Amino acid sequence: MEEIITLDYGSGGKKTSSLIEEILLPKFDNSKLNELMDGAVLKSKGRIAFSTDSFVVSPYFFPGGDIGKLAVCGTVNDLLMCGAIPRYLSLSFIIEEGFKIEHLKKIVNSISETAKECGIEIVTGDTKVVEKGKGDGIYINTSGIGFMEIEGYAKARINDGDVVIVTGNVGDHGVAVMSARNGFFLDTDLKSDCMPLTNLAKTIFKYGREVKIMRDPTRGGLATTLNEFVEGTEFSIELIEKDVPIAQNVFTACEILGIDPLYSANEGKIVLIASKDIAEDLVKDIKNLPEGKNAAIIGKVTSNHKGLVVLKTPIGGSRILNKLTGAQLPRIC
Amino acid sequence: MEEIITLDYGSGGKKTSSLIEEILLPKFDNSKLNELMDGAVLKSKGRIAFSTDSFVVSPYFFPGGDIGKLAVCGTVNDLLMCGAIPRYLSLSFIIEEGFKIEHLKKIVNSISETAKECGIEIVTGDTKVVEKGKGDGIYINTSGIGFMEIEGYAKARINDGDVVIVTGNVGDHGVAVMSARNGFFLDTDLKSDCMPLTNLAKTIFKYGREVKIMRDPTRGGLATTLNEFVEGTEFSIELIEKDVPIAQNVFTACEILGIDPLYSANEGKIVLIASKDIAEDLVKDIKNLPEGKNAAIIGKVTSNHKGLVVLKTPIGGSRILNKLTGAQLPRIC
Repeated sequence: MEEIITLDYGSGGKKTSSLIEEILLPKFDNSKLNELMDGAVLKSKGRIAFSTDSFVVSPYFFPGGDIGKLAVCGTVNDLLMCGAIPRYLSLSFIIEEGFKIEHLKKIVNSISETAKECGIEIVTGDTKVVEKGKGDGIYINTSGIGFMEIEGYAKARINDGDVVIVTGNVGDHGVAVMSARNGFFLDTDLKSDCMPLTNLAKTIFKYGREVKIMRDPTRGGLATTLNEFVEGTEFSIELIEKDVPIAQNVFTACEILGIDPLYSANEGKIVLIASKDIAEDLVKDIKNLPEGKNAAIIGKVTSNHKGLVVLKTPIGGSRILNKLTGAQLPRIC
Repeated sequence: MEEIITLDYGSGGKKTSSLIEEILLPKFDNSKLNELMDGAVLKSKGRIAFSTDSFVVSPYFFPGGDIGKLAVCGTVNDLLMCGAIPRYLSLSFIIEEGFKIEHLKKIVNSISETAKECGIEIVTGDTKVVEKGKGDGIYINTSGIGFMEIEGYAKARINDGDVVIVTGNVGDHGVAVMSARNGFFLDTDLKSDCMPLTNLAKTIFKYGREVKIMRDPTRGGLATTLNEFVEGTEFSIELIEKDVPIAQNVFTACEILGIDPLYSANEGKIVLIASKDIAEDLVKDIKNLPEGKNAAIIGKVTSNHKGLVVLKTPIGGSRILNKLTGAQLPRIC
């Protein structure tokens, strides 16, 4: 008989213990977690970054990853974007009654492998089970602590003449999840770009305060993140449409799905604003990493349209790119 | 028209921003959160405690509290039980489409008030929205960081002759939630004991290493927590049934609902093991706090039944109290 999660697994009693001891602990073996206290006691140093995200992506297995890999990368990447080196991760499950234990094991495995790849320790956790029809398989929250490596990324430091850099093709994650959800494009190689941004971020850290701000453009995509960079400031961003790297298959899928790739989520890219002086060198360094080979300068900061993002089209037109309105891509992460 | 949460609120775009700016930020005003980065950058010192919990309690409003108050107290209390003073909290919502904005505001208000009472800052957050039928109103994850005040609470330090102390009546939370869920007992004053354990814990911290281990007996109740204290050790706990404080209305409700109060969840109590020498003084100090007035010594550590909890009944019998098996009380927290 296929093993499934029942409400008993969330009782806090024997079944919860067996779930923890048989499925979770063997994969996340470390002394802090093994004590099974209500929390973990950890070494800290200086200033820390602290971040949280709940993941509700549907479907929970998608081309290029699954909700487990995404839950680790998502929080690891948020810590990196704060200028921190990720160190500790908490892991909390909300599982729907009837969820296959085989699927849970696959997700736990993927969490464990991704955490190892990121050099982050899973130190504390929680599991809740809700009745059938009160969830959607599995939701995961991760929160993370990182040690600050470089401080001061802030929109307040953006200046006229700065350039906008993206570390690779945009839109992959959103399109991969949407196609998986709709069962489209089964014969293409659309894949989520879900990955830890550790090496990219470390390369960027080396440029110190020449980098003004950086962010991973997840929900809402590149266009929404660029809006967040300049909203409330004296500056605008001019985005050069032809310079934004987009894979041909993503571009085609977007046309069919009616999605704008500039608003489609990314889970393995960084967009940043840096001073003009170091921009070429920085892009060269990023391109030296396999995950940065499509990096490009895609625009610049001007003081022409206070607080706005303006897209320059190949035929010489320009239009304002707002933040995403509405739920173009629900449950993408 | 009644305002409700739609999928747009989880898109990461404009609606998400309005939710954050209009409902959340005004209640959690602090500079770390206002920056709206992917994480918060925080001062840290020495060693820290780190804890996480997802809250799925049903119903999300119950006598004596709501899911918001519970989500703050739950993580604050877990940090205190590690020997830490809680400092920073993350807050992550998974909201079901159609959820009333009025309810969200009430819950956010309750989170804000409880956080103030606990002296903990909400520094980072996240909001996801899932389709109708894929959640149950609202689920909340909180993760917390505390600065270590006293280290070394561990079952390894439990010894023959130590005593077991509880800081007040047991079973209140589980019974209050179960009655609210079933619509029973509307005329009684059954109320959850949900509260921050800050003052109780600080009193206990003063006794240093004379206190061996402490825990808040939530899911699985007193009996399950006592089992966790001794399982895998050389010792057993003898629990004196007549000495365990239980409110009369909780006792009666348990009889009707078929719940054993020893397995019913608490959200405002501590159970601890301390050396005999200081036990009387400690109980006296706890009783001096309003929330500790029903504190009592309820048992002792012996080496008679390795790893077991044995209940001594008033008529001289004894029976083994196991961990909770099955889901007697699903979705209690």
